[in-house]
Amino acid sequence: MPTFSVDLEPVGRRVTVRADQTLLDAAQQAGVEIVAVCGGAGACGKCRVHLIEGDLTLPTTVEARFFHTEELRAGYRLACQARPLSDVKVDIPPSSLSTPQRLQVEGQESEVELDPVVRPVDVTVPPPHLHDLRADTMRLRSVLAQQGVPRPFFSQPVLRDFSERLRQQQWAVRLALRRQPPLFEVVGAVPPGESLVGLAVDIGTTKMAGYLVDLATGHTLAKAGMMNPQIAYGEDVVSRIAYANEHTEGRRVLQQQLIESLNTLIGQLAREAGVVHDQIVDAVVVGNTAIHHLFAGLPVTQLGESPYIAAASEALDLCAVHLGLELSAGAKVYLPPNIAGYVGADHVSMLLATGAWNAPMPTIALDIGTNTEISLAVDGRVLSCSCASGPAFEGAHIHAGMRAAPGAVEYVQMSGGEVHVQTIGGKPAVGLCGSGILDAVAELRRAGVVGRTGRFQPQHPRLVAWDGGGAFVLVPQAASGNGQDILVTRKDVNEIQLAKGAIRAEMEMLLREAGLTYRELGAFIVAGAFGTYLDLESATHIGMFPPLPLERFHQVGNAAGTGAREMLISGARRRLAESIVDKVEYIELTVHPEFMDVYMDAMYL
Amino acid sequence: MPTFSVDLEPVGRRVTVRADQTLLDAAQQAGVEIVAVCGGAGACGKCRVHLIEGDLTLPTTVEARFFHTEELRAGYRLACQARPLSDVKVDIPPSSLSTPQRLQVEGQESEVELDPVVRPVDVTVPPPHLHDLRADTMRLRSVLAQQGVPRPFFSQPVLRDFSERLRQQQWAVRLALRRQPPLFEVVGAVPPGESLVGLAVDIGTTKMAGYLVDLATGHTLAKAGMMNPQIAYGEDVVSRIAYANEHTEGRRVLQQQLIESLNTLIGQLAREAGVVHDQIVDAVVVGNTAIHHLFAGLPVTQLGESPYIAAASEALDLCAVHLGLELSAGAKVYLPPNIAGYVGADHVSMLLATGAWNAPMPTIALDIGTNTEISLAVDGRVLSCSCASGPAFEGAHIHAGMRAAPGAVEYVQMSGGEVHVQTIGGKPAVGLCGSGILDAVAELRRAGVVGRTGRFQPQHPRLVAWDGGGAFVLVPQAASGNGQDILVTRKDVNEIQLAKGAIRAEMEMLLREAGLTYRELGAFIVAGAFGTYLDLESATHIGMFPPLPLERFHQVGNAAGTGAREMLISGARRRLAESIVDKVEYIELTVHPEFMDVYMDAMYL
Repeated sequence: MPTFSVDLEPVGRRVTVRADQTLLDAAQQAGVEIVAVCGGAGACGKCRVHLIEGDLTLPTTVEARFFHTEELRAGYRLACQARPLSDVKVDIPPSSLSTPQRLQVEGQESEVELDPVVRPVDVTVPPPHLHDLRADTMRLRSVLAQQGVPRPFFSQPVLRDFSERLRQQQWAVRLALRRQPPLFEVVGAVPPGESLVGLAVDIGTTKMAGYLVDLATGHTLAKAGMMNPQIAYGEDVVSRIAYANEHTEGRRVLQQQLIESLNTLIGQLAREAGVVHDQIVDAVVVGNTAIHHLFAGLPVTQLGESPYIAAASEALDLCAVHLGLELSAGAKVYLPPNIAGYVGADHVSMLLATGAWNAPMPTIALDIGTNTEISLAVDGRVLSCSCASGPAFEGAHIHAGMRAAPGAVEYVQMSGGEVHVQTIGGKPAVGLCGSGILDAVAELRRAGVVGRTGRFQPQHPRLVAWDGGGAFVLVPQAASGNGQDILVTRKDVNEIQLAKGAIRAEMEMLLREAGLTYRELGAFIVAGAFGTYLDLESATHIGMFPPLPLERFHQVGNAAGTGAREMLISGARRRLAESIVDKVEYIELTVHPEFMDVYMDAMYL
Repeated sequence: MPTFSVDLEPVGRRVTVRADQTLLDAAQQAGVEIVAVCGGAGACGKCRVHLIEGDLTLPTTVEARFFHTEELRAGYRLACQARPLSDVKVDIPPSSLSTPQRLQVEGQESEVELDPVVRPVDVTVPPPHLHDLRADTMRLRSVLAQQGVPRPFFSQPVLRDFSERLRQQQWAVRLALRRQPPLFEVVGAVPPGESLVGLAVDIGTTKMAGYLVDLATGHTLAKAGMMNPQIAYGEDVVSRIAYANEHTEGRRVLQQQLIESLNTLIGQLAREAGVVHDQIVDAVVVGNTAIHHLFAGLPVTQLGESPYIAAASEALDLCAVHLGLELSAGAKVYLPPNIAGYVGADHVSMLLATGAWNAPMPTIALDIGTNTEISLAVDGRVLSCSCASGPAFEGAHIHAGMRAAPGAVEYVQMSGGEVHVQTIGGKPAVGLCGSGILDAVAELRRAGVVGRTGRFQPQHPRLVAWDGGGAFVLVPQAASGNGQDILVTRKDVNEIQLAKGAIRAEMEMLLREAGLTYRELGAFIVAGAFGTYLDLESATHIGMFPPLPLERFHQVGNAAGTGAREMLISGARRRLAESIVDKVEYIELTVHPEFMDVYMDAMYL
């Protein structure tokens, strides 16, 4: 039997398979975990892939159920159905990859034109002698003036080691020069020929993602994720603000925790990329406004009480050494501007990276979290708002809720009396992560086990008595990984209703403000980790998202992180982010007279 | 008998005396310690004062011995001879005050035009409300834009407390705005109406002097002195550089010691002036180049080895918070430029304050210390050099040497076989401070007890055998305060010869470079603490200073501190200091072919 090579993109793995093996077999053989809730039976339709090169067997009748003709014509297939007829290259969209895989591949290399704020300048400083007794900086200034760098500024942390470095390197040095004419600042120095890199970080309420980027090529050299250590002081930003207010030094503690973890992350990234701290000469950090304030050491009391005012919302260039971040001695940390107390720089970064702010058709872009920020771009306007959607999608306040970790149910499918679940890492189920609870509620509703109001219909054999409202046994004790039934309780369903209701209501308010209906939306961009893992059909089924054709949805992964990397390699992108914020019209929903009615309506399943 | 009031300036004390009492009596009654080595017998001529207003008894024949006719006509008198004929006001020059008094009054208020870099801007920020949800800084920016302040910068330390302050002060705030167009930076904030003050510090190798100055009036609100704590790590800068080189963290330790002491000094000044740290919004610090580097945390290794290169010599604006100095959150510390590795910003500050850099006649200006920096201004040129003159004038390396403290012999007079000494505070003698050892050597030479080469002539009854070279008993055991003879040894005389030889040789080299002889010098400015206390006749008698008419000498006290205060209240003075440095021609003596010969000659007494 012939064999063919299968290239799996964008993960970049190649594997050889027999002609009778499917693309799903190929992926599994390559160690690439494709979502296949039904186990490859053609029942769930989750294992979508896209043919880039080569030939596959013709679409099966199973595939015809899951795709439109145009989609099939364009090369969309189910991995469990398609077999190669030649060497092939297929693209696996993030939504078809299970969680850990997606974390690895999320965030494509940016196509932004390289325009880094910090650039190398190679100089050889004439050594001093008895007829040239000028200070080290003065002799350097002469050389720089000849190279077209007028009156550069050296901050004290840069000068600390500079004379020693010059002598150790026999007077040849690569300077990291931060250019913001008329200001030129030397922010670091490395041996000649060493590369200058930058750090981009997206700090979420729960997780942080860091990237080291080569400033000369724009390539990402290393990525790593880490939990936000502030979780120990409160799961959401509101409780962290309370912690900061109620404890002496509380604000400082929260900042220090974050800085220390970031330094660990930086160390890890530096090792992976094979660079030293001196080479990390620029940084961009994005996060929501509360995280931004806690990171920068700004006051948060006023963020925690109406009318929820940011201390500062303009773009900030902070000294890394002030913050305690272990970068090059003079490195600055660029924080893009915030929009409002609850619409932060991470949202700005997402609008920038996705181009949503300037979309040619009416476009919704949102990032779902404990707080969900949504923007609507239409006819040159950008309307933004924010609403507390609760931590249900982060697994909190859910009976069997857990973070997206091995053993978390991430997908659920019910057909007949059968319940199929897929867990992260294929481990026995121990709980439900965000996409799992979303799927579970959607499937329970679809199967009629849950009614419009969220109440269990009392006839299903898997229902058990629980705390007055009942519960559904999603995974029975015998099959679970922790010896307990994995339950979906009435209260869980309510939590999802509250969350999805808030998100949908926000969206509706923006649409009303713009005089649009959801049908007029040309694009619907879902950013962020949960937004990437969630099942769009489930999300539309429970009414969290409007029932748009699926091709209008774009699950873009960590777009905030991508935006941060764009701003890292491009000063023009920073200016653009600042101009986006100037353009945004922020809508305060908490005081909008119609909001509560819309919200109540949106809670029906 | 009639009584008259006597105003003693510049100390500002008033006292009432009888018509038969002298001005010396008046001063003693007022607690103002005037130098009177002879005890008021009219023998020493040290108690010179200058009549400003009112009438005194006619000059005595004693006074005619000590003054030229023109001087008497101009109102110069001996306090021990003159008695009031009316209410009078007299000026007591620093040289007529004993050490502790001089420390109090040194450094007059500057007459520089007020042009502070940091100025108050009073604003009332509109509070946020549901229809104005802009960040605190954004609402403030709008108000500032209306007041003609475009795009101000807020550093992170300022933002730390700003939102809380705004709310506590009901949105009314006085900002400290640092103006260096096109840059405007908010460096602090205080309640409306509170004054903004600045800190000027002169850090010497041995002592530090600090001043708090009202930036709105230019008035000095408080002054205080303190020892430089780095003394514990080496008496001179060379040994401190060695300490920094030889100990891990040595540089950091030396910096920290200094910063901690400065914070104590700042606290003391703030209490005295009745201000809080937030009100101290600007600072100027001067010191020699090594002290400057140790203060700023710059590398000093290259300062300690030929060719003695400064790491940085341009003017620096450092963040107080970076340094750890307890000033307003965003305060900058201005360090004027250095001239060379051993001619520092303190010398620049002295040239600025005295106007020596731009004198209308050939002028020498010097500051004597362990290292003595001398400048010669002539025909628009400024030539500067520096030389190690040793610590003899700080009491070190002298057998009975001590710092200028109570019990230190500060003046010596020999007539006939008699030896008269005056000690600081009038306490029994326990040792010799710089001016005392200078006087002692001069008087020994004058009396013929010491020859030109520094050898004791072996006939004097007070000579005793000592360590091969002999010693002179200046104060016998019976009269001393420590039960021991206070000796001047042959080695002490040699130390003075080395020191004065270096100083005189430096001067000669500058004069040669300019093609001048000392007779052409129109002014000879002696700055610094020791320079103020020293007896000019003794200094010229031993050949440390050239034998110019006494009126050409100007003992100006802590001119470096005065210059620092000028730069504190005037941005124009900072620019001027920078232009002075650009103008200076530094002469490196260590490699000058003629220096050693000139030095050897200059050591003769």
